[in-house]
Amino acid sequence: MPLKEGDFVLLLSEGGNTYLIKIKDTYFSTHKDTLYLGDLKGLDYGAKVFGKKGTCFYLLKPTIHDFLMKVERLTQVIYPKDIGLILLKLDVGPGKVVLECGGGSGALTSALAFAVGDKGKVISYEKEAKFQEVAKKNVSRLGLEERVLFKNQEVRDKFDEKEIDAVFLDLKEPWLLLQAAWNALKPGRPLGILVPTTNQISQCLKELERLPFAGIEVLELLLRKYKTNPERIRPEDRMVAHTGYLIFARKVEEK
Amino acid sequence: MPLKEGDFVLLLSEGGNTYLIKIKDTYFSTHKDTLYLGDLKGLDYGAKVFGKKGTCFYLLKPTIHDFLMKVERLTQVIYPKDIGLILLKLDVGPGKVVLECGGGSGALTSALAFAVGDKGKVISYEKEAKFQEVAKKNVSRLGLEERVLFKNQEVRDKFDEKEIDAVFLDLKEPWLLLQAAWNALKPGRPLGILVPTTNQISQCLKELERLPFAGIEVLELLLRKYKTNPERIRPEDRMVAHTGYLIFARKVEEK
Amino acid sequence: MPLKEGDFVLLLSEGGNTYLIKIKDTYFSTHKDTLYLGDLKGLDYGAKVFGKKGTCFYLLKPTIHDFLMKVERLTQVIYPKDIGLILLKLDVGPGKVVLECGGGSGALTSALAFAVGDKGKVISYEKEAKFQEVAKKNVSRLGLEERVLFKNQEVRDKFDEKEIDAVFLDLKEPWLLLQAAWNALKPGRPLGILVPTTNQISQCLKELERLPFAGIEVLELLLRKYKTNPERIRPEDRMVAHTGYLIFARKVEEK
Amino acid sequence: MPLKEGDFVLLLSEGGNTYLIKIKDTYFSTHKDTLYLGDLKGLDYGAKVFGKKGTCFYLLKPTIHDFLMKVERLTQVIYPKDIGLILLKLDVGPGKVVLECGGGSGALTSALAFAVGDKGKVISYEKEAKFQEVAKKNVSRLGLEERVLFKNQEVRDKFDEKEIDAVFLDLKEPWLLLQAAWNALKPGRPLGILVPTTNQISQCLKELERLPFAGIEVLELLLRKYKTNPERIRPEDRMVAHTGYLIFARKVEEK
Repeated sequence: MPLKEGDFVLLLSEGGNTYLIKIKDTYFSTHKDTLYLGDLKGLDYGAKVFGKKGTCFYLLKPTIHDFLMKVERLTQVIYPKDIGLILLKLDVGPGKVVLECGGGSGALTSALAFAVGDKGKVISYEKEAKFQEVAKKNVSRLGLEERVLFKNQEVRDKFDEKEIDAVFLDLKEPWLLLQAAWNALKPGRPLGILVPTTNQISQCLKELERLPFAGIEVLELLLRKYKTNPERIRPEDRMVAHTGYLIFARKVEEK
Repeated sequence: MPLKEGDFVLLLSEGGNTYLIKIKDTYFSTHKDTLYLGDLKGLDYGAKVFGKKGTCFYLLKPTIHDFLMKVERLTQVIYPKDIGLILLKLDVGPGKVVLECGGGSGALTSALAFAVGDKGKVISYEKEAKFQEVAKKNVSRLGLEERVLFKNQEVRDKFDEKEIDAVFLDLKEPWLLLQAAWNALKPGRPLGILVPTTNQISQCLKELERLPFAGIEVLELLLRKYKTNPERIRPEDRMVAHTGYLIFARKVEEK
Repeated sequence: MPLKEGDFVLLLSEGGNTYLIKIKDTYFSTHKDTLYLGDLKGLDYGAKVFGKKGTCFYLLKPTIHDFLMKVERLTQVIYPKDIGLILLKLDVGPGKVVLECGGGSGALTSALAFAVGDKGKVISYEKEAKFQEVAKKNVSRLGLEERVLFKNQEVRDKFDEKEIDAVFLDLKEPWLLLQAAWNALKPGRPLGILVPTTNQISQCLKELERLPFAGIEVLELLLRKYKTNPERIRPEDRMVAHTGYLIFARKVEEK
Repeated sequence: MPLKEGDFVLLLSEGGNTYLIKIKDTYFSTHKDTLYLGDLKGLDYGAKVFGKKGTCFYLLKPTIHDFLMKVERLTQVIYPKDIGLILLKLDVGPGKVVLECGGGSGALTSALAFAVGDKGKVISYEKEAKFQEVAKKNVSRLGLEERVLFKNQEVRDKFDEKEIDAVFLDLKEPWLLLQAAWNALKPGRPLGILVPTTNQISQCLKELERLPFAGIEVLELLLRKYKTNPERIRPEDRMVAHTGYLIFARKVEEK
């Protein structure tokens, strides 16, 4: 199916850089070359095009992973390596109703909206209006805004929702909202939390122990990339050493 | 909604062990205690029950992550930490049509079937009939067998399918099937490969370079678990050091 | 130089197991085979011998690393991967005078004694007499007991020594001895600390900030072993995920 | 003992940067401030001084670790995290005679010279004269040039030496020198190799298997640094992901 106005394309340059663009009648410039995006209409994904100075670009179909990596951001965002595991741990699939608090720039929101399908629902709380505006933009690029209920409010004691399939907390003091998360969740269902520091892990664990949660786990994921010369297989020189610690637990009946 | 005959439950013992069971009129024994599963009928997820010797068990709703961890296995299986990233990299969501070759015991197959929803499709090739039988069982536990087309055949030159959204290869010599994968894929779409050794990475990269693939990446994920005593935050003593290397690439037009 | 009564040998079995033994007229048994150690006299390091059932063993010269791995232990011991870096960070070489508190079973003590040479000195404090007895045995196996001053006493406020080249603390509450360490050190010289938990890191950092220490660092080392089949290069399946966190700082003049 | 002309000092700025300087009557400038080094004479290590613009600097006694981090370099150098373990694995301590081939800029050479003491010896082969000149400078800064025999020659078949306590190879094709290493070593003693790629591991292992070596090991070390805010314990954002793979083996008698 030929590309048309408004389609998203991941441009992959011969140097390995990638750019997420939307097709329209305009020029797009990298630090090396310039491309007229109007010329992409009628081509198919996978096609090879050349910039004015001869740089080769491939037109790739953006994956959800690409959208997550290219998210517009005003805040720290959750990385795909973590999001992938969060989706599985929180059992997020077609038809599920998921609540997140601390939606930030909407990286996880986008992935949740992608995964729950058109019969599922994402409720996304975020107290900062300007962050939520960015989150909305990011979800809209995926065309998934109907799946997300954005709530621009600070939660203190409780969420408006009940009988939620999974809850995720990504804020500075998640331990303040654990009772609220418990109240919102269906019994036996999973809660996920992301915190950047071990001091925050301690605080969360203390509160989780006090409340009716079970199956508590703390973990981190490290992603190591390798160079791609087949004669010289070796990791890249540097890597991201830390994004955050993930905490998971399940709501159980009151003690 | 009260639990009934045939429902799956993840039993979490007070010692932290978990058991995936199906409710029926039978006894279930751990190395410590025994539970009559018929008694679970009518309870809800989240409930707490006691074994004959007084061990406490929580009844958790099994997540897709739980099913993946408790998969029946005749082969090495792909771990959730890797599956989570594979789903995002391969853009697997509701409605997608995905092909895997080397389905093995069906861990990834199960996750793919979960993620594609009822409008998506998974085509799973596996040459060993006995592995595929186990894979079918694993997918059936999730009630998702209608989403999977199991093909018990060895692929040499080509897949029967065309216009596939994503292809994943998990076999000993994936480099032999890269042309076949290219033929099966829609243009611009992703290919994923898992190999346990760096020698296999080399072989794959040599062949990927020769064929019209772009955006080649090699990576690995390390999962590190932490103990959950809030006064003594520290990683567990031992961890899985290696599951496999992941390779990703995109089909582009012929050179 | 032929092996004689009392020499240490690292026996390496064909299965890859290693045993640190001392030559004398006695039998040595593994779970698979038996060797008469008296027969080793007159052989040289590197020689190959056979057990009664035909198992092949190589006679290796034990390195300091071997002694550290085979240390007798009543406590957790510091691992060679950490010891190697500690020696460099603490500037431990021939002629240096080093103090450790919390000597435990004497793994680090042995390495310090090895590194300081016959003109250096190690002062090793340990409050538990039975741990220090084991430490003495471990150092004696290396024939280095003259280099170590063992002090079986609990330190509360101060060490007896001044003008020390480097101090290492390996105890439960090292923050209580930071002033004592400062007093014992020569100015500008390094302090090292090992703690297993992040809560202890916090406590140490708070106290280090309060005292005249500079150049504070916190780090950890991860050792990953690989299988040795040249056709199938890959990490081993499991690894040690955590031994401890290392903290380093330098004594500076009072604020 | 007051500092004097020619002494080395590690300057630690309040921002955490470090500079290895030698005291003489000259100015030293960082990107922020300037210090007249002549003014440091008569001070002691640990002292605090101020630059012209008021920046605070501490005068630390450089450790061997500092010298290794501040080595002048024309080549990739071996990192302290690896050097620490190499010293223990190769049993390098006072009095030992050690041979290295591929001395490069002399980081490992410096550490070996430090560790073997005044009765030990380091033989350092390097085919590139300009690299060896830098290595000599680095060793001279430590005042240890008498402990090192520098040989500016390419080794093809054999080393000039016999009865060496340990051999280390750090060159592009170490497998070509394994027989030479075997010939140079005392029986039962250790060989170490550093290679950056897994392809080189394969080549080394193939040759090590063919020759009379035993106890073959392959490993890598990962160093992860943490931020030092006691209220926010967490790893730094980025880390070095790869320096090299270490291979160790022991010479045994011919098969």
